[in-house]
Amino acid sequence: MKTGFIGLGRMGSAMATNLLKAGHDVTVFNRSTDKSRALLDLGAHGATDIADACRGEAVITMLADDRAVADVTLSDGGILQSLPRGAVHISMSTISVEFSKTLTRMHAEDGQRFIAAPVFGRPEMAAARKLFIMSAGDPATVAACMPLLDAMGQKTFSIGAEPSAANLVKLSGNFLLASAIEALGEAIALVGKSGIDKRAFVALLASTIFPAPAYASYGELIATNKFKPAGFVAPLGFKDIRLMLAAAEDLRVPMPLGGLLHDRFQRLLNQGGEDLDWAAIGGLAAQDAGAQQTAGSQI
Amino acid sequence: MKTGFIGLGRMGSAMATNLLKAGHDVTVFNRSTDKSRALLDLGAHGATDIADACRGEAVITMLADDRAVADVTLSDGGILQSLPRGAVHISMSTISVEFSKTLTRMHAEDGQRFIAAPVFGRPEMAAARKLFIMSAGDPATVAACMPLLDAMGQKTFSIGAEPSAANLVKLSGNFLLASAIEALGEAIALVGKSGIDKRAFVALLASTIFPAPAYASYGELIATNKFKPAGFVAPLGFKDIRLMLAAAEDLRVPMPLGGLLHDRFQRLLNQGGEDLDWAAIGGLAAQDAGAQQTAGSQI
Amino acid sequence: MKTGFIGLGRMGSAMATNLLKAGHDVTVFNRSTDKSRALLDLGAHGATDIADACRGEAVITMLADDRAVADVTLSDGGILQSLPRGAVHISMSTISVEFSKTLTRMHAEDGQRFIAAPVFGRPEMAAARKLFIMSAGDPATVAACMPLLDAMGQKTFSIGAEPSAANLVKLSGNFLLASAIEALGEAIALVGKSGIDKRAFVALLASTIFPAPAYASYGELIATNKFKPAGFVAPLGFKDIRLMLAAAEDLRVPMPLGGLLHDRFQRLLNQGGEDLDWAAIGGLAAQDAGAQQTAGSQI
Amino acid sequence: MKTGFIGLGRMGSAMATNLLKAGHDVTVFNRSTDKSRALLDLGAHGATDIADACRGEAVITMLADDRAVADVTLSDGGILQSLPRGAVHISMSTISVEFSKTLTRMHAEDGQRFIAAPVFGRPEMAAARKLFIMSAGDPATVAACMPLLDAMGQKTFSIGAEPSAANLVKLSGNFLLASAIEALGEAIALVGKSGIDKRAFVALLASTIFPAPAYASYGELIATNKFKPAGFVAPLGFKDIRLMLAAAEDLRVPMPLGGLLHDRFQRLLNQGGEDLDWAAIGGLAAQDAGAQQTAGSQI
Repeated sequence: MKTGFIGLGRMGSAMATNLLKAGHDVTVFNRSTDKSRALLDLGAHGATDIADACRGEAVITMLADDRAVADVTLSDGGILQSLPRGAVHISMSTISVEFSKTLTRMHAEDGQRFIAAPVFGRPEMAAARKLFIMSAGDPATVAACMPLLDAMGQKTFSIGAEPSAANLVKLSGNFLLASAIEALGEAIALVGKSGIDKRAFVALLASTIFPAPAYASYGELIATNKFKPAGFVAPLGFKDIRLMLAAAEDLRVPMPLGGLLHDRFQRLLNQGGEDLDWAAIGGLAAQDAGAQQTAGSQI
Repeated sequence: MKTGFIGLGRMGSAMATNLLKAGHDVTVFNRSTDKSRALLDLGAHGATDIADACRGEAVITMLADDRAVADVTLSDGGILQSLPRGAVHISMSTISVEFSKTLTRMHAEDGQRFIAAPVFGRPEMAAARKLFIMSAGDPATVAACMPLLDAMGQKTFSIGAEPSAANLVKLSGNFLLASAIEALGEAIALVGKSGIDKRAFVALLASTIFPAPAYASYGELIATNKFKPAGFVAPLGFKDIRLMLAAAEDLRVPMPLGGLLHDRFQRLLNQGGEDLDWAAIGGLAAQDAGAQQTAGSQI
Repeated sequence: MKTGFIGLGRMGSAMATNLLKAGHDVTVFNRSTDKSRALLDLGAHGATDIADACRGEAVITMLADDRAVADVTLSDGGILQSLPRGAVHISMSTISVEFSKTLTRMHAEDGQRFIAAPVFGRPEMAAARKLFIMSAGDPATVAACMPLLDAMGQKTFSIGAEPSAANLVKLSGNFLLASAIEALGEAIALVGKSGIDKRAFVALLASTIFPAPAYASYGELIATNKFKPAGFVAPLGFKDIRLMLAAAEDLRVPMPLGGLLHDRFQRLLNQGGEDLDWAAIGGLAAQDAGAQQTAGSQI
Repeated sequence: MKTGFIGLGRMGSAMATNLLKAGHDVTVFNRSTDKSRALLDLGAHGATDIADACRGEAVITMLADDRAVADVTLSDGGILQSLPRGAVHISMSTISVEFSKTLTRMHAEDGQRFIAAPVFGRPEMAAARKLFIMSAGDPATVAACMPLLDAMGQKTFSIGAEPSAANLVKLSGNFLLASAIEALGEAIALVGKSGIDKRAFVALLASTIFPAPAYASYGELIATNKFKPAGFVAPLGFKDIRLMLAAAEDLRVPMPLGGLLHDRFQRLLNQGGEDLDWAAIGGLAAQDAGAQQTAGSQI
C-alpha cells in the first residue's frame, strides 16, 4: 500500500522500516530531517512537508503525545487539510481518549477516515516486528489497513468500532504495568530490608507466579536501583496515567491505585526523575523504608 | 524417607499423595480422620495422634494458619514434645514471619531442626506435582529434606538460612498477586463502563503484556463477576495481607498498596464475602463505579 | 457605590440584600427574573440584560462554577464586552485557578480591572453579613472595592496581588473541610461500630479538641446519617476537589488525601448522591464497615 | 481522697500537683525518684515501691504506653498484687483497647475496680487544670472517683460502662488530630508552592473555618517547618495510630485515611524523625512537592 509515515522516533523508525521491508510504498516525514536518512536508504520517499506524506491511501502518525499529534494534524498545512477524501489517518500514538474522539469527529466531517491503532512494545520489539497492535474504528477501514498493521506487529487485536476504545485499552494496559511496578517496588523494599537478596526474589517471581517479561525486567531495574538509561521515560509514563485518570473521571470510575501512581510520578519528577525510566516509581517505596541504596543508586 | 504429614486439606492431601507415589514412608494425621482414607489406600500409615506422626526423620505441617500450626506444634502431646532430637519439622503452611521465628527458636531449644517450605500453587497444581516450593533454614537440613520437597513440587528455591525468610517471600508473593487483582479490578471497571468487552480485554492482556496465568484466571473471574466456588477464599487472602503488613510494620516499611488491599478485604468481608474467592476484591472497583452487574453477579 | 450584581441564588440574593442595606446602588441581573423580585422591593434596579448590570464602577458575579461565569462574562453581550474601561469585575464565585488567570488576562487586555473575592460561609451566614471574604488582585483595586466587600462580610482578608491566589485559598479551604468530613466519617464508623453513642462522641469532640462549627455540624450529619436537605450539594463539593487537584497538578504537588476525597465523591455520586449534602462522603466509611443504618438513613 | 499516683512525666507531675492543690492525700511513685522532689515539697508522700502507692482508695497511672502500664501493674509487687479489694485503679494513660479490656478483666478477677480516664491536653493544659477527661467504667466507681478527676481537668465526660470505650475515644481523637495535620500539610504544600504566604494562610484558616487551637498551632509548625522541640513526639503519635488501627481491625472497620497516616509516620521515623513533634508528618507533603525548605528546616 502507499502510505505516509509521520514521527520517526525510535519506535516510528523501526515501524516504518518494517513497512518498507514488507514492500509497502512509504513516504516519511519528520520535523528533524536527519532521522529520515536510514529510511531513505531502504527505499522510502522523503516528504518535504506534511502534505507530501498525505498523498497515499493512508498516513500513519507515531508521536509522543496529544500535542504533537495535534500539531501535525490540525495545524495549517496539516493532515486534516491535506489528506484526500476517503483516505485513512492511522493514529498509532498513545493519545487521550478525548482527543481520539475529537480526531474521529473532525476527520469524519472532512470525509476522511480515522482509526486508532496504538501498540504495546518497546523499540526493540518494534524492530523485531513483535509489537502488539490494538486497532479500533470502522471495521471495513480497519480491514483495509490490515496489510500495513500486519507488517508492523506480531498480532493485531480488534477492539471495536469506536477508535477511542483502542486508546482506552492502551492506557489501561499502561496503568496495569505501572501498578505492577508499584507492587514490585513495595515488595522488593520489604524483602530487601529484611536482608533477602532482591534480585533472587525477582528471579523467583518471574519463574513462578509471574512469568511475564514485565515482572522480570522491571523487577530487575528496581532490585538493582538502576533506572538509566530509560527504556520509557517517567514523564511519558506520568502522561499516560494522567490520560487514564482523565478518561476514568469522564466515566466516573474511582481508581485508588491510579491515584497512588499519579502521586508517585509527581513525587519522582519533583525529585529530578525526568530522565529516569518510569520503573523508578518502584524505587520510592525503598526510599520511604529508609533503605540504604547501593553505589548504583539512581534515585 | 520416613516422614509424618499433618494437615490433609485439599493441598495437603495432594502433597501427601505425591510423597507416597515417590516411595516415601508417610504417616498421616488429621483431626478429622475420614480425610485420611484415600491416603491409607495408597499405602500411608494412619496416626492416631500427633506423636504417632513424629516418629520419622521429619514431620510436615500443611495447615491453614498460625493458630492451626500452633495447635499441633505447641499443645500438650504436640510436635514439640514428640519429635525426636535431630528430626526436622518442615513447615509448609503460610504462616507469619514472627511465628516462624518463634518455631525456629523453640525447636532449636529442644534440639530439633526446623525449616520453612511454603508453596505457590493451587490444589490442582499440588496434585500435578507442579508446586513451587520456597525453602529456608539451615542449608544441610534443607538439603536433607530435598527428596521430600522434590517429590511434591516442580522446583524448590533456596531462600536463605533463616526459615522465616521463606515465609516473608511467600507472603510477598501473595501481596503481589492481590495487587494484580486490584489493578485488574480497576482497569476492568474502567473499560467495562466504557462499553468495551471485559473478557476480550482480559484475553488481550493475557496474550500480550501479561502472559502469566494469574492475569488470565483472575481477570476472567473479575470480568464475569463470578467468585464462587472459591479457589482460595477471601478470609485466607486477608490473613496473608495482614501477616505481610505485620512483617512490614516490624521492619518499618510503608506499603500504601498493601494498605489499600487491607481495606478492600475488610470491606469485602463486611459485605458478606466470606465464601468468595479472594479475587472478589477485584469486583469492588466496579461496584464503586456504579456498574450494572450481570445476572451472574456474586458480589 | 454603583455596582451590578449577577447571580441571585441563595448566596447571591443574601449578599445583594446586604449591599442594598448598606446604601449601595445595586443593579441586579439573573437569568430567571423572578429571583430579583425581593431585591427590587428593597430598592435594587432590575437589569434586562447583562450590559445593564455593567454601567457602574463594578460588577459582582456570584455563580455556581466556571461555566456559569464564562457564560455571563465571555458570551456575546457579556461582561467583557459591556464593562467600561477602568471598571472592576469582582468575581466572588468558587472558580478554578486557571479560569481566574484567564479572566485576569482578558480583562486586562480590555482595559478593565479584575479581582477575585471568593467567600467562606453558607447562605445563613451570608444573610447575617457573617461571610469571610478572601480578596486578591491589584491592591488599589481591592481597596477601592472594600466598601462593597465590607457590606457583605464580617472580615475581608487580602491574599495578594494575583487574583487567582484567592481562588486557590478558597479551594484549599474546601479541601480542608472535606478532609475533616472524611476523618470524622472514619472515626464515627469506628466508635459507632464499637457501640459508643455517635452523637455524644461528636459533641465531645466539638467541645474539646475541635471547637469549630464545621466539626459539630458535619459530625452531627454523619452521626445521624442525615444528608438531606443539603446545605452544599455533593456535586459542588466534588467540583471543588477537582479544581483543587487540577491546581495541584499544575504545580505538581502530590496530595494523597485529595485523591482519596476525589474517589469518595465519585463513588457517592455513582450511588445516587447527587442531591445529598457533601458531608455524605463521611457516610461511606460506615458503609464499608458494614454498619447497620438506622431508619433515618439517606445513603 | 487518699490516692497513689504512678508516672511523673510532664503530664503526670502537673496532674499530681493539681490533686495536691485540691487537698487530696497523694502518694507518688516514679522509677526515677528525682522527679518526685517538687511534689514532696507540695505535701505529697513518697512511695518507695509500687505497693506503697497502693494503700489508698485509688491509684492513678499516667504512663507512656501499654508496656509501661503492664510493667507497674502486672509485674511482681505491682498494682494487681498490691491494691486492696474494692480499691480503684484509674488508668489515665493512652493505652490500647485490648489492653484496657485485659486490665478490666484481671482487676475484676481480683476483686478490684478499674476505670479508664484518658485525657486530651498537653502539659501546659495539665498544669492549668484545663485537661478534658474521658472516663468510662462502672458508673458508681466513676462517680466515686469524680473528686480526683475534677481536680485534674476542666471537664470530665462519661463515655460508658466499659472502660475500653474511653480508650477508643481517646485514640479516635488522636486520629482526628493527625488527620487534620495531614490535611494541613497537603494544603500548605499547595499554597506554599504557589507562592502564597504559608503563615498568613494558616492564620486565615484559624480565624475563619477552623477556629480550633489545633489548626492554629499545628498549622504554624508546618508553615514554619519547625518541629523541635516536640510537644508530642512522633513515636508516640505513631503508637496511637497503630493502636487505633488495631482496634479498627478487631472491629473490621476499613480506615483509608488511617492507613495513610500509618505510612506517613513510618516514613518520618525512617527519615530520622524520632525526636520531632508528630506534626512533622505534615511536612512530608511539601517534601514530595519538591519545596525548597527554609533555613529553619527540621525535616
